[in-house]
Amino acid sequence: MNSFALMERLVIRDATSKIVLLVIDGLGGLGREPGGPTELEAAHTPHMDALARESVCGLSLPINAWVTPGSGPSHLALFGYDPLQYRIGRGVLEALGIGFNLRDRDVAARGNFCTVDDSDTIVDRRAGRIPSEKGADLCKMLQQIRLDDVQLWVEPVKEYRFVVVLRGKDLSSDLTDTDPQRAGVAPLPVRAIVPGAEPSARLIESFVQQGRDILSSQHPANMFVLRGFSQRPEWPSVEEVFGLRTAAIASYPMYRGLAALVGMEALPAVATLEEEFDLLESRFSEFDFFYVHVKKTDSAGEDGDFDRKASILEDVDALFPRIRALNPDVIVVSGDHSTPAVMKSHSWHPLPTMIWSRHCRPDEVTSFSERACARGAMGRFPASDILPLAMANALRLKKFGA
Amino acid sequence: MNSFALMERLVIRDATSKIVLLVIDGLGGLGREPGGPTELEAAHTPHMDALARESVCGLSLPINAWVTPGSGPSHLALFGYDPLQYRIGRGVLEALGIGFNLRDRDVAARGNFCTVDDSDTIVDRRAGRIPSEKGADLCKMLQQIRLDDVQLWVEPVKEYRFVVVLRGKDLSSDLTDTDPQRAGVAPLPVRAIVPGAEPSARLIESFVQQGRDILSSQHPANMFVLRGFSQRPEWPSVEEVFGLRTAAIASYPMYRGLAALVGMEALPAVATLEEEFDLLESRFSEFDFFYVHVKKTDSAGEDGDFDRKASILEDVDALFPRIRALNPDVIVVSGDHSTPAVMKSHSWHPLPTMIWSRHCRPDEVTSFSERACARGAMGRFPASDILPLAMANALRLKKFGA
Repeated sequence: MNSFALMERLVIRDATSKIVLLVIDGLGGLGREPGGPTELEAAHTPHMDALARESVCGLSLPINAWVTPGSGPSHLALFGYDPLQYRIGRGVLEALGIGFNLRDRDVAARGNFCTVDDSDTIVDRRAGRIPSEKGADLCKMLQQIRLDDVQLWVEPVKEYRFVVVLRGKDLSSDLTDTDPQRAGVAPLPVRAIVPGAEPSARLIESFVQQGRDILSSQHPANMFVLRGFSQRPEWPSVEEVFGLRTAAIASYPMYRGLAALVGMEALPAVATLEEEFDLLESRFSEFDFFYVHVKKTDSAGEDGDFDRKASILEDVDALFPRIRALNPDVIVVSGDHSTPAVMKSHSWHPLPTMIWSRHCRPDEVTSFSERACARGAMGRFPASDILPLAMANALRLKKFGA
Repeated sequence: MNSFALMERLVIRDATSKIVLLVIDGLGGLGREPGGPTELEAAHTPHMDALARESVCGLSLPINAWVTPGSGPSHLALFGYDPLQYRIGRGVLEALGIGFNLRDRDVAARGNFCTVDDSDTIVDRRAGRIPSEKGADLCKMLQQIRLDDVQLWVEPVKEYRFVVVLRGKDLSSDLTDTDPQRAGVAPLPVRAIVPGAEPSARLIESFVQQGRDILSSQHPANMFVLRGFSQRPEWPSVEEVFGLRTAAIASYPMYRGLAALVGMEALPAVATLEEEFDLLESRFSEFDFFYVHVKKTDSAGEDGDFDRKASILEDVDALFPRIRALNPDVIVVSGDHSTPAVMKSHSWHPLPTMIWSRHCRPDEVTSFSERACARGAMGRFPASDILPLAMANALRLKKFGA
């Protein structure tokens, strides 16, 4: 019996307890010097430390002990979905990232503008990292392409990156990439992986040929490659599996889109963390489970700005009493992945995680940090256990067997 | 290679070392106040604390991190059987619970007396929680039912609960429940899940119709529903897998029955914990592995009696030197699941567990408790690893590979 089958069997569907999951993006960090305090350890976070003393703590592993996750899989793990089983296509993820309202059978692909030489060999996979404005102009040019019986969107993401979406009848995403993912070779022809995908392959082929003509004079962005053809996955929703009415509170389109993929209701986007907490308060009576996303810690980590990341953690901590004041039955604080400022990137390191409830059985951890949580009673555990553990703590699960 | 195949390959079948597994039912607890001492932490248990200092300790997970287990699955895990793979039908478990001597192909089901209205709709799933004496009388009435070519037993469990057992040729338990598990609907017809089960379905149908007539004037218990039709599973025995001659010492029928299911020899039931220890001593030369079960901690937890649970833990501790005096090669102390008095029920919380042997490699844990074991060198680990770890510590396993 897999984990979802077990969960569905044990869920108490008329429970009324409430769970708040605060996801601090890129939470995990590293010391400036090896062994020095991490961003979270350097920050003064008295409210989260106080909760840690009443919580059960541990280090969560988004995928496993050694994989550095992207935001897609790491969020799926936090939502209780095994990220190695529930995979999101790259095209769909990019479309979510720009807030594109993808419908069920739309086919999305990630595009890269690139530079090819006279013999059609890719010489620069990023077209000289053209500025975003230039990328947007090129997308407008490609948007002029006409394909039989389908609607087409070519939407800029950033710099040389864009998204293509096709909408029409009987489209299939079982197509091979045109992106060879290396320079020194020509873009690949698109091929149908299954017989039913041949009409879709011909549409993409037409798109590529028309696009090639349009861009031929646009050096350095005189060509593009596509990868990750995909459609919205049809997965069991959080409500079906966990019996939770769920709200996602997140400023960035990607996270609202990820939440919507698993059937959460994405509340309207707001600009600041304070406004996210306003939304949590004003909508608190309407849902069982709240996913609240803090983005800026990750951005600071990606920028390599240790002090800014620590400072944002202090901002989060200052707002933290507003969560407790709502008196939820379960509070979980974790991150989706680590983004140590000294690495300027996501990393594989496990995440400090605490679960608070009246029944959580607190351990001896007295502050919320990487080092302290390493001594927690939850040990190192899969991030996909976080939501099930929150369910147990919310007394939303029946006994297994008699 | 699954865990049992690996185990069978590595077992040294002529080993003579001895293992004692002390299972303190419902061992895990919670503080009266969040973070306060648990039952085990409040109890004065100097002998178990002393053993903890010489043991390797950890927190064991009966099913996983978040499932609250019943006694059946949690005991199977302690016996080394994956509780999600080795599943016991509800009928069989109830029959074991009353000490019914179930034979191999007997079909058992759990019955509930209930109240139906004139249109056959269930209005009370527990028939007003009739007293146990009344339930026993009703079982005697149903016992009068005659079915072609099969023997029938209708045995009371408690209040509105009973067990039905059919014994005959070619019986099948591939039958659907008549229990809809909710009020407001009629009992369901029994149906064969596979073609070969149709004769058994007709027997149950006849039992239900005759029973309905017998009970029609017995308001509020004027009907009954059946669920969990099942037969004794045919599993590899502990002796086959682990090469152990095993004895089960337990007062309650359920635990002796569970042990017998996996091929342990259930020693005669005794009334007190002292008598269980007498039995351990008197039969010590005859077996390799002893499962000794302490029931009353769980009962106190279910009753919400924190002090009584702590007091029983002290009673266990006072007898503990008798185990050490037998000089077994391995001593394991754990529980099957947590039963925190403050929750008055089983819970998902992991179990303090210690494994002592000459070769265990003690950690820094200096007392036997939830909090202390959270720092143990075994970390959090599946309860189904306990018996394999005991085997390793008993030097009963060969090297894997060269």
